[in-house]
Amino acid sequence: MYRMMGAMLMSLAVALLIGPKLIARLRKLHFGQTIYELGPAHQQKQGTPVMGGLMMAAGILISSLAFHPARWKGAWDYILPLLGVSFLSMGVGFADDYIKAVRKRHEGLRPLQKIALQVLIAAGFSLYCYFHPQVGSRILVPFVNVEWDLGIWYLPLMTLTVLFIVNSSNLQDGLDGLLSTVSAISFSGWALICALLIALAGADNPEVSGVNTIGVFALSVTGACLGFLRFNRYPAKVFMGDTGSMLLGGAAVAAAMLLRRPLLLILLFFTPIMSSVSVILQRYYFKLTHGKRIFLMSPIHHHFEKKGYSETQIVSMYAGITLVLTLIGVLSVCVK
Amino acid sequence: MYRMMGAMLMSLAVALLIGPKLIARLRKLHFGQTIYELGPAHQQKQGTPVMGGLMMAAGILISSLAFHPARWKGAWDYILPLLGVSFLSMGVGFADDYIKAVRKRHEGLRPLQKIALQVLIAAGFSLYCYFHPQVGSRILVPFVNVEWDLGIWYLPLMTLTVLFIVNSSNLQDGLDGLLSTVSAISFSGWALICALLIALAGADNPEVSGVNTIGVFALSVTGACLGFLRFNRYPAKVFMGDTGSMLLGGAAVAAAMLLRRPLLLILLFFTPIMSSVSVILQRYYFKLTHGKRIFLMSPIHHHFEKKGYSETQIVSMYAGITLVLTLIGVLSVCVK
Repeated sequence: MYRMMGAMLMSLAVALLIGPKLIARLRKLHFGQTIYELGPAHQQKQGTPVMGGLMMAAGILISSLAFHPARWKGAWDYILPLLGVSFLSMGVGFADDYIKAVRKRHEGLRPLQKIALQVLIAAGFSLYCYFHPQVGSRILVPFVNVEWDLGIWYLPLMTLTVLFIVNSSNLQDGLDGLLSTVSAISFSGWALICALLIALAGADNPEVSGVNTIGVFALSVTGACLGFLRFNRYPAKVFMGDTGSMLLGGAAVAAAMLLRRPLLLILLFFTPIMSSVSVILQRYYFKLTHGKRIFLMSPIHHHFEKKGYSETQIVSMYAGITLVLTLIGVLSVCVK
Repeated sequence: MYRMMGAMLMSLAVALLIGPKLIARLRKLHFGQTIYELGPAHQQKQGTPVMGGLMMAAGILISSLAFHPARWKGAWDYILPLLGVSFLSMGVGFADDYIKAVRKRHEGLRPLQKIALQVLIAAGFSLYCYFHPQVGSRILVPFVNVEWDLGIWYLPLMTLTVLFIVNSSNLQDGLDGLLSTVSAISFSGWALICALLIALAGADNPEVSGVNTIGVFALSVTGACLGFLRFNRYPAKVFMGDTGSMLLGGAAVAAAMLLRRPLLLILLFFTPIMSSVSVILQRYYFKLTHGKRIFLMSPIHHHFEKKGYSETQIVSMYAGITLVLTLIGVLSVCVK
């Protein structure tokens, strides 16, 4: 447990320490946000530096490597894929942000390039989990406590899950402090799930080291999000960019899959998923009705903005929803 | 665990449902806030209804009675003192709010009346815990896992603790959404501590029913805070008043003492305690130096306001600090 606490505090400290320098550096490089012309009235945000996600990345990398149980021989089978999926996903987002920033246009990577890279990461990680002795093709269904063997279907289903979660996280990131607040709560939830699993198994059980590693990683993400939030809360001095949002999405899905509980993402990562679903619904409804809309604007947080809610009100609402659902998800692992 | 989830959801629903009617009713009765003339520029808040805490009280009362394990014969030994301390503390706050609202003056109960009533509640509850077979005079020291037998000193020390916590909670309540956000996180922490203690003991252990009752109560408070926050977030439509802040303070100290972990309040209830400490420091420093101040204004959240932070920034900061310290407190119960 000391490892988890240490990882959180170190990650928080790293993000807070390098924050001001990183922001100054990004400003100097003119890596500012080019605000999408069709969005709600956010013109005053033009030029706010993006790629603040690098601050979180530094915190997560340093603290999770410093505090994971490295002496345990299986530890690397957990920490490497966790960091791998997170940082490779971040790489795609970073390429996107970088191209946008350098070429000063709204579009970054071409959609096909982006998807192809993400599919590679997603398929690779699904294969890894499939052959991991402690993971495999069986996922746990919350509440009913049933193991569900997906067999070979694990591979395509989990590949789609990774793609869906990483892009959901990316879609959620659109208001000051929104994704960072939601993620701070959600990753606390993953860590608490790890703590409960360890308590239920008994700390002496050798299998708990893997779970402990995931807990250390999860709290390093929480710490990083809270450090980042110091600069990202309304009015934001920096945005995380696709760099940050894809990092967080990758981290969430990696933790969930290694814990064999991808279904819990529906609770712990509900609001990002809701963002994705709102975009999909809007698009299909628009096509079906030849031009009608369900929401004033999608993702749904912009709908609330157009309805007159302020950014901080929407963040408060999303945080409340996330807290309630995360608590339900965490407590669900105790149900027998 | 289903009981805890149910209590949270029901409490949230009750607060959300009665919220609009309660606010309308308070407005009609002209139970509006009389803003303290010496405070920061909050004049636009003049007339915002107080006593919104009644919304939380209804949620907590209904849901914790509905979901606590009533069939277990010892259940009432936990739920009655929890509700007793919370609602009696609330009663003092309510009397204060009521007198202010009806007489339209800034001061409510006379300080001596207030303290006398609080001492009665605090001493009564300390005596109750002292003679409770599962509580007694031994408190647990976090991290080192040592039991510390306070003996007869338990009574005066815990009486002071109750007084200190209830009034700290009251002092913290000064910005839109501040105490409700902090409490939502903090009481989630108490519930998760209960869940971890149950997991560590094994759910079949008969002693866990008491812990389960505290968990149900704690999540009913979290639900109530989140429901209330719907109306209390910036810009606030209602304030909780002393009614609400003393209710929350009473609830926190009651849960902590029945879990024999009052020292964990330093982590889980850190920011309210910080508010109190800032007031005490300010007062002593002022007296010692004959007129100098440490903070621009106390409690310390007004200091931050005077420094130019917005209300939502301060709430975000306090929430982050509370989340970090609550996670450390929760994980500390697993340390062996």
